[in-house]
Parts: sequence; structure tokens; C-alpha cells
Amino acid sequence: MRRTIAGNAELALLLELAGTPTPGNVDRARDHPDLRFDQFLAGAVGARPGLDAAAAGAPVGIALKTAVAGMAERARDNTQFGALLLLLPLVRAAAATPAGEVSCAAAADVVAATTVDDAAAFYRALEHVEVCVADPPDGMDDLDVRRGAEAIPTLRERGLTLADVVSASAPDDGVAVEWTSGFERTFDAADALRSGAGPLTDRVPRAFLDLLADEPDGLVAARHGESVAERVSDRAAALRDADRETVAAWADDLVAAGINPGTTADIVAAALFVALSRGSRA
Amino acid sequence: MRRTIAGNAELALLLELAGTPTPGNVDRARDHPDLRFDQFLAGAVGARPGLDAAAAGAPVGIALKTAVAGMAERARDNTQFGALLLLLPLVRAAAATPAGEVSCAAAADVVAATTVDDAAAFYRALEHVEVCVADPPDGMDDLDVRRGAEAIPTLRERGLTLADVVSASAPDDGVAVEWTSGFERTFDAADALRSGAGPLTDRVPRAFLDLLADEPDGLVAARHGESVAERVSDRAAALRDADRETVAAWADDLVAAGINPGTTADIVAAALFVALSRGSRA
Repeated sequence: MRRTIAGNAELALLLELAGTPTPGNVDRARDHPDLRFDQFLAGAVGARPGLDAAAAGAPVGIALKTAVAGMAERARDNTQFGALLLLLPLVRAAAATPAGEVSCAAAADVVAATTVDDAAAFYRALEHVEVCVADPPDGMDDLDVRRGAEAIPTLRERGLTLADVVSASAPDDGVAVEWTSGFERTFDAADALRSGAGPLTDRVPRAFLDLLADEPDGLVAARHGESVAERVSDRAAALRDADRETVAAWADDLVAAGINPGTTADIVAAALFVALSRGSRA
Repeated sequence: MRRTIAGNAELALLLELAGTPTPGNVDRARDHPDLRFDQFLAGAVGARPGLDAAAAGAPVGIALKTAVAGMAERARDNTQFGALLLLLPLVRAAAATPAGEVSCAAAADVVAATTVDDAAAFYRALEHVEVCVADPPDGMDDLDVRRGAEAIPTLRERGLTLADVVSASAPDDGVAVEWTSGFERTFDAADALRSGAGPLTDRVPRAFLDLLADEPDGLVAARHGESVAERVSDRAAALRDADRETVAAWADDLVAAGINPGTTADIVAAALFVALSRGSRA
């Protein structure tokens, strides 16, 4: 098969980036002052060996660590950690199901089958990047994702799997919610992307706005607080049917204000993977 | 090694695309009416299995056929045939030399070692794409690259290698000249890219203009004639020290006129691969 599963995952990262405007995010038309478009290209290429490993059947944790380490090595920043955390179980699920039939049930099975070793590899992956999440819930300080490999003894002691730590360490994070909910928003967005007309990339901005309008962005909430995240979502809802120029102007405003709905972009990338896996073409 | 050889080749294709303006070519800021940016992203991802094969030691011809078939399958057009024809021997050369030391001598060795089987695979690769080159020289009609696999009996009869057919079938083509000249312009451009400051992508426009000013573009000559190709190069020479807006305006003009110096872009991609192989970072 020429359109490989790992290739679909890498292309999903690239098409998310090519779609514009995705307000507040680096995209084809916008850089951030401290993060450039080409770093995301490099991050996608750097993640490829980890995506290949997952497609070949490697455990999710090891494949994630390989993908994140490669991404960080090439991009020299955290460009796509959240997207990779979403993509890895989806890639494993796609590898385990007949071509074109990746499903939320298969993805949920992959999540349910994760182990303590996967969790340990996840914390090792976190050594390669700085992630921005809200403070962990009470009793979870030892498992704060910002602790990296230091957290490993605790998780072994408690027998926590990767599914356990993703959901427990940042329960309100949009990526964690996908892990615990069977990737519901990802698959819904994939359906929307599949049903649109024109090049897949041209459908990215609408998918992004719909997701952002639907739920406050986790990264915005972690960096700027819940009320800012809610205001951003309200604005996205108001702009759903606005013309491209109006959305682009808002994109410029968000970049200028340093407000980056990155979790929403991560879900768009995951949705693009599902769409490509089900037969959509670039 | 996390920054793999095949990853460097794929990233080179992506960074060439990200650099803007590259007048007349699809780049981060410009699509062609019939060829979009995201098709080039898809083409780069599609080529990856062939790049992986070459890095793992597959014969140049087979790896090229795999890369071109994968590119055409994902991009649904000929986005990067010329760039891949340049990259494949360079990838093989990089795989055969210590990290960071790919040289024009090693690349020339790979070219010299190509076989009749490589030539046959090259013609099969051509079945996947439409290429635009000038008419072949006298006595070479049977080996016109536009004949695809039909040419194979003739090349077997004459015992022609891939190096023979690349140089003989389109002797004036800029990609063919690289094959026969030890990739001289590619390595010169790589040196220029390596010596600049700032992100590698930001140095692409200057490398492109310098190469275009230096030699008329083969694709422009094949499509529009030698005199147009020469005028384009004269204009590139005049704009070498122009500001970005002036070059961008010329880029818009060339796209509107359908004049695409694609061979020059191919050489930039190959030069980016050499620069990345020698340690440059995105």
C-alpha cells in the first residue's frame, strides 16, 4: 500500500499546518514570534520514525517517546506533542483494523490496552519537551507531567497505565478527554472533514472553528485561564459563518495577543488522520 | 540517529516549498491555478518510502520508481520528479559515507555505478508522471523519456545505464547536467545555504535567485523556449539585491504568466538535502 498509515499520520500534521486561517496557531500564513512554520514541518518529519514504529506494532508508549524525541530533535521546540499523543493510539488502531476502517472503538481498545510500561515511556517522552497544562488534581502532584521521568517510580508503585495517567494528570485537557471519551470529537470532526467539498486543506479552517466554538481550548485555558478560553470559544462561535478575511483578521489578533488554541489544532490533526485513513485525499 | 538520511531528504523537499518567494514556483505564499501547495506536501510524504529504500541501500532505479510512484499517488500530479531524480543518488551517497560527509565525489560514484536495470526502473517511474522536457537529440527518439516503459527494450539492446540515459535523453536539462557534472551547482548552492545566517528556509529565496540568475531554467526552456528562459534568468540576476516585495511582485507575475522555473527549485531542494546532511538545521 503506497498510502501508508504512518504517511497518513505525517501528512495529517502537514495538512493541519497548511490549512489557513486556524486562528492563533502557526499555519501557512502565520508564524509566532518564537515558533516558525518550518519548525512544524521539521517536527512532522522528526516524528516519522515513531509513527512508523506505531504502524509496525510497537507499544504506544515507546512509539510516542520515539516520535516526540524525533520531533523535538528536528523542531528544537515542542511543536506537536499534543497531536502526537492523539495520533499514536489512532495509528495503532488503524494498523489493527482493515484498511479504511479505523473506528473510535478500535482507538478505545488501544487506549484500554496501554500498560505501566507505556506510562513510563510517556514520562520519558516528556523529558524532551516543555508542555503546558494546568496544575494536576489533588493527590496527583507526584504524577505531574512536568516531572518527566521522576514520576516513574510513583506510577510503577501505583500500577498506573498510560490511559490512567493521561486521564488523571490533566483531566480537563482536551487531548486527555479524547483519550477517555473514545476520541469522540476527533471522529466527529473527521466526519465533517470527509463530507465537505474541495481540497481537504481548505476544509481545515471550518473544522477548527467548529471545534473551538464547541469547547474552550485546553492550552488557552492552561496559559490564560478559563475565562479567556471561554471568550475565545464564544468568538469562534460568532465567526463560524464569517468571511475568510474576518477570520483571518481575528487570527492576526490572536497571534499578536499570544493566544494559541493549540489543543484544538491537535484535534484537527487527529481528525485529518482519521479522514485520510478512511480514504480522503490531500 | 534521529535525523535520518531519508528524513533529511523529505525535509529538504518541504523546506524548499516553505521558502518564499521562489518566483514562478508553488511556495508557502503561492499556488498555481492547477497545482496546490498541499499537493507538494502530499508528494513529499508519498516519496518517503522510496527515500527510505535508497537510504537502506536499494538500487537507485528501484528507489526512484518507488519514490515517484508514491509521490504521484499522493499528489495526483507530478510535483517533485526532478527533485527526486536529484535526491536519489545524493541519498545513496549519504548512506555510503560517514555522517555529515556527503560529497560530490560520492554522488558521482553513485551515478557511475548505475546499471541497465536502474535505467529500466527509471523508465517505469516515468509511467507514473507526465514530464516536460525538450525533444531528445537525433538518434535518441526511442529513448525519449516520454515513452515510458516502451523504451526498455531499446536500452537493454544498447546496454545503457541510468547515467547514460539521463545524460543522453535530455542533455541540456538542468537535472541531467547535475548528474553528469558531479552535482556541481547543487554542492555550490549547499555551501551558500550553509554559510548564511537565520533559519535555513529564509535563505532559500536567495539561493533560488542565484541559481536562476546563473543558468536559464530547463523547465522554462522546455515549455517556453530558450529566449524566454534567458530573459527570466536576466531578470533574476537584476533582482538579486532587490527587496523582498519586489521579488514577490515578480513571483506573482511569473505565476500569472504560467512561467515555472521548476528545475531551479529542484536544485534548491537537492542543495537543502546536502546542507541538512552536513549538519544544517531547519
